[in-house]
Amino acid sequence: MHVLITGAAGFLGQRLTRTLLERGEVNGKVLTRLTLIDQVAPVPPSDDTVRLDCRAMDITRPGALDSLLGERPEAIYHLAAVVSAAAEADLDLGMTVNFDATRSLLEGCRAAGLAETRLIMASSVAVYGGELPDTLDDMTALTPQSSYGTQKAMCELLINDYSRRGLVDGCVLRLPTIVVRPGKPNAAASSFASSILREPLNGEAAVCPVPTDLDLFVMSPGRVIDALLHAATLPGEALAPYRSVMLPGLTVSVAAMLEVLREVGGEEALARVSHEPDPRIEAIVASWPARFETRRAERLGFAGDRDFHEIVRTFIAEQTAS
Amino acid sequence: MHVLITGAAGFLGQRLTRTLLERGEVNGKVLTRLTLIDQVAPVPPSDDTVRLDCRAMDITRPGALDSLLGERPEAIYHLAAVVSAAAEADLDLGMTVNFDATRSLLEGCRAAGLAETRLIMASSVAVYGGELPDTLDDMTALTPQSSYGTQKAMCELLINDYSRRGLVDGCVLRLPTIVVRPGKPNAAASSFASSILREPLNGEAAVCPVPTDLDLFVMSPGRVIDALLHAATLPGEALAPYRSVMLPGLTVSVAAMLEVLREVGGEEALARVSHEPDPRIEAIVASWPARFETRRAERLGFAGDRDFHEIVRTFIAEQTAS
Ligand SMILES: NC(=O)c1ccc[n+]([C@@H]2O[C@H](COP(=O)([O-])OP(=O)(O)OC[C@H]3O[C@@H](n4cnc5c(N)ncnc54)[C@H](O)[C@@H]3O)[C@@H](O)[C@H]2O)c1
Ligand SMILES: NC(=O)c1ccc[n+]([C@@H]2O[C@H](COP(=O)([O-])OP(=O)(O)OC[C@H]3O[C@@H](n4cnc5c(N)ncnc54)[C@H](O)[C@@H]3O)[C@@H](O)[C@H]2O)c1
Repeated sequence: MHVLITGAAGFLGQRLTRTLLERGEVNGKVLTRLTLIDQVAPVPPSDDTVRLDCRAMDITRPGALDSLLGERPEAIYHLAAVVSAAAEADLDLGMTVNFDATRSLLEGCRAAGLAETRLIMASSVAVYGGELPDTLDDMTALTPQSSYGTQKAMCELLINDYSRRGLVDGCVLRLPTIVVRPGKPNAAASSFASSILREPLNGEAAVCPVPTDLDLFVMSPGRVIDALLHAATLPGEALAPYRSVMLPGLTVSVAAMLEVLREVGGEEALARVSHEPDPRIEAIVASWPARFETRRAERLGFAGDRDFHEIVRTFIAEQTAS
Repeated sequence: MHVLITGAAGFLGQRLTRTLLERGEVNGKVLTRLTLIDQVAPVPPSDDTVRLDCRAMDITRPGALDSLLGERPEAIYHLAAVVSAAAEADLDLGMTVNFDATRSLLEGCRAAGLAETRLIMASSVAVYGGELPDTLDDMTALTPQSSYGTQKAMCELLINDYSRRGLVDGCVLRLPTIVVRPGKPNAAASSFASSILREPLNGEAAVCPVPTDLDLFVMSPGRVIDALLHAATLPGEALAPYRSVMLPGLTVSVAAMLEVLREVGGEEALARVSHEPDPRIEAIVASWPARFETRRAERLGFAGDRDFHEIVRTFIAEQTAS
């Protein structure tokens, strides 16, 4: 099995690479070859069981991926993207990286005749927006209120059409907000959702910029990676007629997250979180839907986290192990 | 008021041109200038009240529209498109005409600073497909099952994003099946819906290829033109946060259509319709949704036909007049 990952140097790309190499198989087939692509040179994992190919490459360069696609990877994880804030700040950059590069990838698959190749793209809750029902499902209209969400939604449509035409075998996963991310805070509006757990558990201060009654729709990094791997195993017919799936996240309020922090880390951990409302962040985060009916995803075999306790306990265990 | 129409030589473009010239105003402003663009040279209407500019032009040519956009039209009707069957037969043609040309038009508006220009695009029920609820509304997901529907849905997303960013003032109308079209049958799967009325009323034979209990979602050409004109009058805020609107069509069964034919044209007219099931046409037409909750469109002031009688009577009156 030859797997290609774009955006392999990113947060999910690195973790997916590690998990793929640990498991050594995809959909029951032995992993023999792994091609890692990113604008930032992916750090070659120390592994001698598979043929590794790490390339620093800008996938927006016309035909950038063509020769690699000619080698007929059997699964492609398309994770390269510029995130929400960057796509909003620079429309052209977002269109080029998030949309045009995905279209080129689809055209490359078409040209190489990769009808059987499972192409998995990470989409986002940002495809939703505006005036939404209380609880969403896979039949809720995509009315994005950001350029990032617009570009992801356009990619979803295109991947579905190319799949329907039998040019590739696509699958789109809409990812919940990923919590608890290891590492440092970043510029994402959702960064606080990891910070308010991670920093206090590590003895550091954190700021909560939103009201505690705000609900989030979250999933742990481990469950997201499980979902990416599971997506490689589903037959196309199971996904048709529409291959976009919202993953079964967990609806949790910031207050409930902080309560788990207190239970796990004690009062002193909780005391490290200060509350400094930031209306700009609140406006963005509050516009994300927090309740989804995800029976379809579950029927397809995607699993969410059991509860927020489990998410935090797993984060601590992984941090200790690494 | 300077109005630009792409696809002006087409069915709707010609009729829109005629109606615009008859009314002489758009949104309370005197029509002073009309620019007609089509691949097929638009026939210049005989009118000396406005400045007319008819151009044969392929809008897929890069920058084709740029100099015209530089003249700052205040309303743009973007009607140029290749229809469903053509887009399905040739993916590249559909992507280029239906999607890329719309994107270029948006980029042209952005470059010319046409933030205040109302851009009106005709979308279609073909943006819907797959496993749909019984009754759809503007919050039903677009899960198209054709490349034409995919391309229209992608244009909708892009027009919404460019409008949200204040680069243009967009509005997308999803048109029902237009019935009764004057003229000749064409290659569209929906062609029979006009034929089974038009031909018998004109003393000619027609074939009905679908079961008579099939429901259609229809609108008369006159009401569609009214809607296109009304779309030029709505403030952007009334359309936000999402500027795509399904027009209030009429749900009518083929049996009910034939019953109106009998009432208006008599038994001899009805007898001119023969029933020859065509599973290929039935499959396409039956996949189109026939029931919509269109309160939003009505609140915005879009009006549908009263009943199918009115549609047929208007068709006969217009045919007699022309
Ligand atoms: N992390 C989340 O919470 C989340 C939520 C929803 C969706 N997603 C999506 O999941 C995917 C991965 O997310 P992540 O958190 O790992 O993001 P990330 O920013 O850590 O990784 C994205 C990677 O893409 C690479 N990249 C960007 N432009 C490129 C180009 N032109 N050519 C080649 N590589 C390029 C970057 O260098 C980066 O390594 C993205 O598509 C993202 O939109 C993530
Ligand atoms: N008529 C319907 O039932 C219906 C229903 C839903 C949506 N629509 C949409 O309404 C619009 C108008 O429909 P219509 O029935 O008048 O279609 P039509 O086919 O009669 O007109 C379309 C026009 O676009 C022109 N065109 C195509 N490619 C072009 C190019 N590259 N450059 C310049 N011009 C080009 C054609 O020459 C044609 O005159 C289309 O966008 C169509 O998708 C129509």
